[in-house]
Amino acid sequence: MAKWDSCDRSPAFIEPHWMQIQFSDQKKEFNKLPTKTARRSLSRSISQSSTDSFSSVGSESSEDVSSPKDRIQKNSKGLSDFCIKNIKQADFGRREIEIALQEMPALMVLRKRAGDEKPLAGAKVVGCTHITAQTAVLIETLCVLGAQCRWAACNIFSTQNAVAAALAEGGVSVFAWRGESEDDFWWCIDQCVGAKNWQPNMILDDGGDLTHWIYKKYPSVFKRIKGIVEESVTGVHRLYQLSKAGKLCVPAINVNDSVTKQKFDNLYCCKESLLDGLKRTTDIMFGGKQVVVCGYGEVGKGCCTAVKALGAIVYVTEVDPICALQACMDGFRVIKLSDVIRNVDMVITCTGNKNVVRREHLDRTKNGCIICNMGHSNSEIDLVSLQTAELRWERVRPHVDHVVWPDGRRIVLLAKGRLLNLSCSTVPSCVLSITATTQALALIELHNAPQGRYKQDVYLLPKKMDEYVAGLHLATFDGHLTELTDDQAKYLGISKQGPFKPTYYRY
Amino acid sequence: MAKWDSCDRSPAFIEPHWMQIQFSDQKKEFNKLPTKTARRSLSRSISQSSTDSFSSVGSESSEDVSSPKDRIQKNSKGLSDFCIKNIKQADFGRREIEIALQEMPALMVLRKRAGDEKPLAGAKVVGCTHITAQTAVLIETLCVLGAQCRWAACNIFSTQNAVAAALAEGGVSVFAWRGESEDDFWWCIDQCVGAKNWQPNMILDDGGDLTHWIYKKYPSVFKRIKGIVEESVTGVHRLYQLSKAGKLCVPAINVNDSVTKQKFDNLYCCKESLLDGLKRTTDIMFGGKQVVVCGYGEVGKGCCTAVKALGAIVYVTEVDPICALQACMDGFRVIKLSDVIRNVDMVITCTGNKNVVRREHLDRTKNGCIICNMGHSNSEIDLVSLQTAELRWERVRPHVDHVVWPDGRRIVLLAKGRLLNLSCSTVPSCVLSITATTQALALIELHNAPQGRYKQDVYLLPKKMDEYVAGLHLATFDGHLTELTDDQAKYLGISKQGPFKPTYYRY
Amino acid sequence: MAKWDSCDRSPAFIEPHWMQIQFSDQKKEFNKLPTKTARRSLSRSISQSSTDSFSSVGSESSEDVSSPKDRIQKNSKGLSDFCIKNIKQADFGRREIEIALQEMPALMVLRKRAGDEKPLAGAKVVGCTHITAQTAVLIETLCVLGAQCRWAACNIFSTQNAVAAALAEGGVSVFAWRGESEDDFWWCIDQCVGAKNWQPNMILDDGGDLTHWIYKKYPSVFKRIKGIVEESVTGVHRLYQLSKAGKLCVPAINVNDSVTKQKFDNLYCCKESLLDGLKRTTDIMFGGKQVVVCGYGEVGKGCCTAVKALGAIVYVTEVDPICALQACMDGFRVIKLSDVIRNVDMVITCTGNKNVVRREHLDRTKNGCIICNMGHSNSEIDLVSLQTAELRWERVRPHVDHVVWPDGRRIVLLAKGRLLNLSCSTVPSCVLSITATTQALALIELHNAPQGRYKQDVYLLPKKMDEYVAGLHLATFDGHLTELTDDQAKYLGISKQGPFKPTYYRY
Amino acid sequence: MAKWDSCDRSPAFIEPHWMQIQFSDQKKEFNKLPTKTARRSLSRSISQSSTDSFSSVGSESSEDVSSPKDRIQKNSKGLSDFCIKNIKQADFGRREIEIALQEMPALMVLRKRAGDEKPLAGAKVVGCTHITAQTAVLIETLCVLGAQCRWAACNIFSTQNAVAAALAEGGVSVFAWRGESEDDFWWCIDQCVGAKNWQPNMILDDGGDLTHWIYKKYPSVFKRIKGIVEESVTGVHRLYQLSKAGKLCVPAINVNDSVTKQKFDNLYCCKESLLDGLKRTTDIMFGGKQVVVCGYGEVGKGCCTAVKALGAIVYVTEVDPICALQACMDGFRVIKLSDVIRNVDMVITCTGNKNVVRREHLDRTKNGCIICNMGHSNSEIDLVSLQTAELRWERVRPHVDHVVWPDGRRIVLLAKGRLLNLSCSTVPSCVLSITATTQALALIELHNAPQGRYKQDVYLLPKKMDEYVAGLHLATFDGHLTELTDDQAKYLGISKQGPFKPTYYRY
Repeated sequence: MAKWDSCDRSPAFIEPHWMQIQFSDQKKEFNKLPTKTARRSLSRSISQSSTDSFSSVGSESSEDVSSPKDRIQKNSKGLSDFCIKNIKQADFGRREIEIALQEMPALMVLRKRAGDEKPLAGAKVVGCTHITAQTAVLIETLCVLGAQCRWAACNIFSTQNAVAAALAEGGVSVFAWRGESEDDFWWCIDQCVGAKNWQPNMILDDGGDLTHWIYKKYPSVFKRIKGIVEESVTGVHRLYQLSKAGKLCVPAINVNDSVTKQKFDNLYCCKESLLDGLKRTTDIMFGGKQVVVCGYGEVGKGCCTAVKALGAIVYVTEVDPICALQACMDGFRVIKLSDVIRNVDMVITCTGNKNVVRREHLDRTKNGCIICNMGHSNSEIDLVSLQTAELRWERVRPHVDHVVWPDGRRIVLLAKGRLLNLSCSTVPSCVLSITATTQALALIELHNAPQGRYKQDVYLLPKKMDEYVAGLHLATFDGHLTELTDDQAKYLGISKQGPFKPTYYRY
Repeated sequence: MAKWDSCDRSPAFIEPHWMQIQFSDQKKEFNKLPTKTARRSLSRSISQSSTDSFSSVGSESSEDVSSPKDRIQKNSKGLSDFCIKNIKQADFGRREIEIALQEMPALMVLRKRAGDEKPLAGAKVVGCTHITAQTAVLIETLCVLGAQCRWAACNIFSTQNAVAAALAEGGVSVFAWRGESEDDFWWCIDQCVGAKNWQPNMILDDGGDLTHWIYKKYPSVFKRIKGIVEESVTGVHRLYQLSKAGKLCVPAINVNDSVTKQKFDNLYCCKESLLDGLKRTTDIMFGGKQVVVCGYGEVGKGCCTAVKALGAIVYVTEVDPICALQACMDGFRVIKLSDVIRNVDMVITCTGNKNVVRREHLDRTKNGCIICNMGHSNSEIDLVSLQTAELRWERVRPHVDHVVWPDGRRIVLLAKGRLLNLSCSTVPSCVLSITATTQALALIELHNAPQGRYKQDVYLLPKKMDEYVAGLHLATFDGHLTELTDDQAKYLGISKQGPFKPTYYRY
Repeated sequence: MAKWDSCDRSPAFIEPHWMQIQFSDQKKEFNKLPTKTARRSLSRSISQSSTDSFSSVGSESSEDVSSPKDRIQKNSKGLSDFCIKNIKQADFGRREIEIALQEMPALMVLRKRAGDEKPLAGAKVVGCTHITAQTAVLIETLCVLGAQCRWAACNIFSTQNAVAAALAEGGVSVFAWRGESEDDFWWCIDQCVGAKNWQPNMILDDGGDLTHWIYKKYPSVFKRIKGIVEESVTGVHRLYQLSKAGKLCVPAINVNDSVTKQKFDNLYCCKESLLDGLKRTTDIMFGGKQVVVCGYGEVGKGCCTAVKALGAIVYVTEVDPICALQACMDGFRVIKLSDVIRNVDMVITCTGNKNVVRREHLDRTKNGCIICNMGHSNSEIDLVSLQTAELRWERVRPHVDHVVWPDGRRIVLLAKGRLLNLSCSTVPSCVLSITATTQALALIELHNAPQGRYKQDVYLLPKKMDEYVAGLHLATFDGHLTELTDDQAKYLGISKQGPFKPTYYRY
Repeated sequence: MAKWDSCDRSPAFIEPHWMQIQFSDQKKEFNKLPTKTARRSLSRSISQSSTDSFSSVGSESSEDVSSPKDRIQKNSKGLSDFCIKNIKQADFGRREIEIALQEMPALMVLRKRAGDEKPLAGAKVVGCTHITAQTAVLIETLCVLGAQCRWAACNIFSTQNAVAAALAEGGVSVFAWRGESEDDFWWCIDQCVGAKNWQPNMILDDGGDLTHWIYKKYPSVFKRIKGIVEESVTGVHRLYQLSKAGKLCVPAINVNDSVTKQKFDNLYCCKESLLDGLKRTTDIMFGGKQVVVCGYGEVGKGCCTAVKALGAIVYVTEVDPICALQACMDGFRVIKLSDVIRNVDMVITCTGNKNVVRREHLDRTKNGCIICNMGHSNSEIDLVSLQTAELRWERVRPHVDHVVWPDGRRIVLLAKGRLLNLSCSTVPSCVLSITATTQALALIELHNAPQGRYKQDVYLLPKKMDEYVAGLHLATFDGHLTELTDDQAKYLGISKQGPFKPTYYRY
């Protein structure tokens, strides 16, 4: 995938393991993965924080000195084909899942609608995602729809142990705990893929580590694989590279770029999480503040709308004339950063580009100017240029650094230039629900597609299923669709059940 | 072109002549062209209204009983290769053009930037568009860039006679006057195409009549034609049909679907002209009114934003779940029309569909409910169902009819269900400027494209030129683009000059 | 009343006759009253335009060469105590009134609720207001509530003749026609006040002319007068002057400053009519335009909200730091006019001050900058400074002048600096309904107040009645009030029926 | 003061001590003061959290087992007329004050402008407020302006010990530490008032405890007191009661009701802190949510604007028809709570009334409906009705309780019905700056007022000083005031320096 989508970015963005491995070769430095830890904030939610309080009560830290790998646990049905922290936490995890379930009604509707058909009957899904209450709802939905599942964590820090316990108690073969070592990480994946008597025919991946492992160690498994469903920007990027190189040997569905998911990940989620992240870190009042937003893609549009709505005066920088003209028509001055940097109270980057905010800008800000990044990459703010002897760094709060110039002027740097909304706010259940539902439907599509529909290539989710995901979430908002009459459908030349728009429609 | 773009619609939409001809065969009913007359409002602008006052002063109606065809006129240089109402109006028309020119700075910039290169040197453009002060600016821009032009009107009512005179005085061979008969109409086109000693090599068409005429009468002309530039929805539709049928014998550029033009025609223009049209016809106050907008495509989004901004409470109907979910997230209740029709003060259709508002709905409105159409087609409101004996129609103002039920309840029907913003408001110069600039660039592209770049097919304007049009208009808003550094361009894998996004980017 | 309310202004503002008389003494220059004619636009509404079309049909102009004063007409009941243009127009006028009536449901509710009690039984109201379909609804409401009425016009141009005919046919003694001479004007008022066998005990005035006349000619009438209800800014100003001078000999209610009326006249009405006036005169597109609004009182707040909502970038000038800080917090840059005048596309004055926009500013505008006034007075733009030899004025449309500098740069001046929304847009029925209802309630209050409640002073409408007016209009918006429980009312220390706020509450 | 201001409310609201004393008589239950603790969140800010981290480092808890009262400490100049936790924390506290100082530029400007005049020379101010970095900036500003100060804390929990140390080191006689007992509390106040050789002539109070103590124990002190400045709603209420009872023996200025402070405390602050509080507690996404806001005063207006801006659909309940009509015109449906309670995702109370949300409503909510209070009092939600056996309460996070019905349906109750923005968000520095500046100016006014200007009554801050506070804060927003010309000031009949509006102007 080209880097064109510079203005957009998935909250699920994360450097994949294989890249780490390729780049750092033998020196696998798992402890230094900044995006990996940043990703953890994704799972901060009601259930997560409850887990935390539980953890302290259950004194997890003290008792579990031994590795889960060294212990055999059994669930109440006597099964032991899993490896987790502590099966006793299952009840607590179940409560977490039940709460999350109430926030993901679309999956509930899917269970009801498709439950009888068992559209995933015969599917053997190997998965590698965060293991949280929300993904547990997804995994158990797949089971209700007929699938068998084996699951590992895509992140060594993000697993909710109680949730993993509940999954194991419910019969899912899950291999994951919080605080895995790197060896543990790959061991867990291996337990999922290399099980005796069980061979996967579908892959659900988030980041591409699982896919990578199979390519490396079990290439023959691909013979039985009907397809891969990949969510993350990087995982998708890797699949396109494989495809270009002619090495992709099964169909893959890129769920990251489905319309519904994109709108929620970028426009709607960022619009709200920007405010959240800024309030939590700086307690700033937006009214009357002058703000410059770099980039007017989906993320930039969301950010501009949000801060303008709260009374800020917003300037936009852009490199693309079409986006720039949109910014004008939407009521924002389009300027160069250097022309307003002296006057603004805040700089927000949303470009996906690198070194958008540079030392030459930061040398001229107002005292107390807030600098933060909502964009795709961690490189939008040129941090290296700030790591010089004459500048003093002060950590004043978690995620908040003051960088102080010799004359006492300071900037307020948030999350060290990493993604503000991943570091300093949470991802709403509604956004996670969109993603999970999209993943479930992509699996159903691949599992049921007639021979030949999908080749060894990367596909977008079919428009009709994209529409179906949206439709499932309408109920959450008490939204009611109008149905086309036969006459109208004929007039428009489309089916009454959709798809309603051509693939290139811009929404 | 499929009918999928149901939610969008160009202000320039108009039934093409050839359709009339095909459908009505020998019985060419020019007097019944409702959209043709509707289109006239497009030219209501400062200059137009000045022309009108001039006309009354100049007593145009009384003196010119003879047809322009029967008189030979000469301009001040002794040239007579044109046919217009009255060459004496040239001075007045020149003033009109000069005023319009100030409102179209993008074309001025284009003249300056490209004037020396003469990118249209050698181009012989035959054109068929409305003839107004704004299109005159376009035509004369083409001349400045090196082209020779012959021009006819695409509409029998919309020509500004003084402007045509100024064009003729300036050396353009123009054949057009207000109030042509149908025979006049085709005669004028024929004068442009069938001139001795002059053979066109490019076509600029609006509606497809000119193209149709060449197909019918001068097919051999296509041998020298480098390409067709077509602006209107219907003209474009016809070109795609020709292409599918394998009958398109030259390249064509569909300028209607360029990103910049679409955004202005649909989202930005409708957002403002809805308010304008409603105020001019009904004097309604929006604050606190309950409004239902049918359709949440670009036009619907613009309409919803506008009336909400003025304090209305807005409901949306949709058939497409993705658009419906967008409406929810943007803060609108998504409902079925029949569920709110009893409570709303206004119904606005923007679907492109037919019979969206039906008798079953209109039988249940509040007294005084306003019904209007902003959508693509004239058929969104089922007017036929209102033409029954028990309902009384009262015309209370131009474009405003009351339809009265036996019990005294009335609805307020605007523009008889035709496009409100074409009938009851004006098209801002900025929108016309975008279109004209796009047309000029499309001609330049076709004229200068290396052999083989374009086949006998219909093309969208290249992304880069689309971006160029947007860039030319940024100056109007005092907008300043940021330029990529070499390093950044490399990082993004794109050229510093664009295009900045892939074709499928959604904006 | 002090001039403090500089930022606000009633659409009904008009120079009163007596001021003209005082200032110009014997040389009464009625033909030069610019605000008087401006006021006429107030009556442009659905019914008005119908009247106009009727007029042309009925050939009013040709037949009525004789003055209405010279003819005796009788209505169908044989009564002739009125003087109007033509009683035969009564049917047409009745239809106009009936349409207006549907747009003023609050008065209908008042008729129903209070109809049986006849709260105005015994009231003999002499009135002097515009005579339009809307005021006819008010007058007939007073009759339904028990009053007897005699009525004259407060403006020589604004009378809708057909409406006056309908009133006469219905039994109201009305003396008014369009195009009265000044002598006619006072004669009509005199017919109302000086009737034999009928002596008024209440006055409803708009502008103060009627009150003035009684002071001059019939001072003894005041002995029986229970009170005066005055609507206009100037009329109210005059009453306060009388009061200060100790010459006010009856109670007066200032309905102009009731909370509900103020909010509608200033904030809500201007918010919408600014857009309307600008669109009708200039066809401007607001998106991306830079606009400076001078003054951030109620009118300025409305104007800023409106143009910002349509995508303009808005700057504010203010002299008052509190209003300026509000502008900041609401998201507007507060600047000095001279600092932005070079960059803006539009200047809108809302200060109530004089010479806010001066030649020094206008010498430096962008070409095509639009200048208009929404404020209280006609003097906000220093027109005198533009009437110099080197500047050329061009009238390009009704209400639109171009003023052209020697270098060709031009400004677009609207309504010659008079109130844009009175000159170039209409007053919505809802605003007129608020005013009419407030007037009716003020009359009821004065008529029924126990002896001693009101002294010889000027009073605001009692808060409770102000609330009652608002409550009557809630139904229009399908709004439903919550009623306090006994317990809650006790807790708050107020009556369940209101008033709910102290007089000084800021809303 | 009557309870009319039901829709508004100061973030500084707190039950005063004397009320506790009066009501609970001998049984002074200081440990049960819920609002007292709630108030603590006010001081959560950058400096506060730094203090917290400091505290843990400095191991405050372990070392200070003895009461500060039992130890004598000296600052670096050898002075010991203070009583605080630990003078060694002074350096750290100084840094906190310096950071806060940068966020309160208005006080800095005041120091500069008035520093030479020493407008408080001779003033001996006894103060009782929270002791935080922000109030320290105020206290030291008073000193710079010439005053001598003695200070106690108005809250037993809110003192930042390091800040108190820095004040003491700087020479202020401060008596306060975090975690005072009730005896400590009154002892500290007594140390301020009853000092030998120092008698106050001005009082700055927040809550009225200090004033109460002087009334009780040192009534003779009032002979020398020039006036009281009181900030809190309850303190002001008490002063009005004293005034009515004829017991107020000195002038008092009610700074709570100054225009500028009111707008910031209610409209601007609540608009932002509502979002903040909801995000921090529930991670909710606002887009598409249905929300009912009870009450449309200043607070309600701010809340409605905020959630609407983020894409929620908002309903309003009101008892006052004028506010209800404003809600309509601003685009909100006005309904009764019982009519929408089944459909909404959130209920926000802003009425100042009691039992606005009752069991009858809560029995019918959607599952997961969020209930919170932004209003004046803690009684808006009828909590008592939820404390019944069949309902289960679950604490899921700090400030978040689930109340679960027997059928599993749950509501999400925030802050147990106490003020959301005090419990779950922070007060921006800008709001605290407005308050502090207002307090300083009120002291200056009382200290310098000529004999006789103020009687023994409660006064609002003079309009001109209110304007001055606003003006001092304009610089923060880079706002530039326009100055009236002599001619304009004369025309308006006001001074060029203000006041610009009459007292009753509504803003």
